[in-house]
Amino acid sequence: MQRVLKKKVLALLLSAFSMVQVQAAGASDHSPHQHSKEYANFNRAGELMRPTDYREWIFVGAPVTPKDMNDGKPAFPEFHNVYIDPASWAHYKKTGEFRSGTIIVKELTSVGARKSASGNGYFQGEFLGIAATVKDEKRFADKPDNWAYFGFEDKPSAAAQSDEACSACHKANAAEDMVFTQHYPVLRAAKAAITSRY
Amino acid sequence: MQRVLKKKVLALLLSAFSMVQVQAAGASDHSPHQHSKEYANFNRAGELMRPTDYREWIFVGAPVTPKDMNDGKPAFPEFHNVYIDPASWAHYKKTGEFRSGTIIVKELTSVGARKSASGNGYFQGEFLGIAATVKDEKRFADKPDNWAYFGFEDKPSAAAQSDEACSACHKANAAEDMVFTQHYPVLRAAKAAITSRY
Repeated sequence: MQRVLKKKVLALLLSAFSMVQVQAAGASDHSPHQHSKEYANFNRAGELMRPTDYREWIFVGAPVTPKDMNDGKPAFPEFHNVYIDPASWAHYKKTGEFRSGTIIVKELTSVGARKSASGNGYFQGEFLGIAATVKDEKRFADKPDNWAYFGFEDKPSAAAQSDEACSACHKANAAEDMVFTQHYPVLRAAKAAITSRY
Repeated sequence: MQRVLKKKVLALLLSAFSMVQVQAAGASDHSPHQHSKEYANFNRAGELMRPTDYREWIFVGAPVTPKDMNDGKPAFPEFHNVYIDPASWAHYKKTGEFRSGTIIVKELTSVGARKSASGNGYFQGEFLGIAATVKDEKRFADKPDNWAYFGFEDKPSAAAQSDEACSACHKANAAEDMVFTQHYPVLRAAKAAITSRY
């Protein structure tokens, strides 16, 4: 009798667990925003692995520096769609700060049209490639404010830029911790919401 | 003895369940993208409730129709940050179609600067308000392709626009099912990825 009970309860326990595992798997399958994991991943050579799911991260702003306003040769052609990873977004919403581990991706996109039903302007065309910046207090302890910069072209991974071209410009011109928050209303609004809570 | 065993196993079962509930709650707390729920919610009067978390949805593109390129009066000033809800994004990635229940939000944002360290162009300033469109086969059975259009200004909810100003223009000019996918590279890339899978 006792053994039967034991068996029944074990079976119940197992089915409860497997039910739960199915639910958990379902949740994670359908959740592009998983805040427990790190989004900046490095290979053994210390290169940043090209992020794959950044279009499901948090969009923060989209400056456009069109060719026709920059003598045909903007530094970054042309739209810059900028995203922050979900874990660091969650942290920023709470603290107003970029945590160690933050990765920000800039996806460059051509201008596809200068006129549409809504008027004259600039309308996004095709993707041209991505660049990224990562803040890491340990890995980039010697970089300005611990941010390193990466260009991918078509590569699956990229080493941190060794020169100071990116960091010098960000340090001199970006509004907050080397990030151009002056052009990213989503981040500014999130920060303002923290202040207004108190 | 049997009763003790029963108690112990029940306690174990309960603790297993509560552990699991904590995990589940944690997952959903940290997952702005919950694909099981509907994102277009209506009140009893049939008005669309103003979406609150759309900045954590999937960004699809950001046209800009600046004042200075539209005699000071663009139809929609100035940047249009466009998002699709996560559940409908998941469906679109699989099928290449906008499901019944899709909600697309357009957040209007001023031009804050026309020059920055990256060059001449347009840089996002402050949020100006949102508009939304919802496709619903039942609720909007009589609307063109079942899409209804909503303007919120400062209101917490909005009735579907009764005139055809929005729908006529979308019907005439939008590339796909009344959505301007020609300006949304994220959606075009997702659709192309479906085709390339076969």
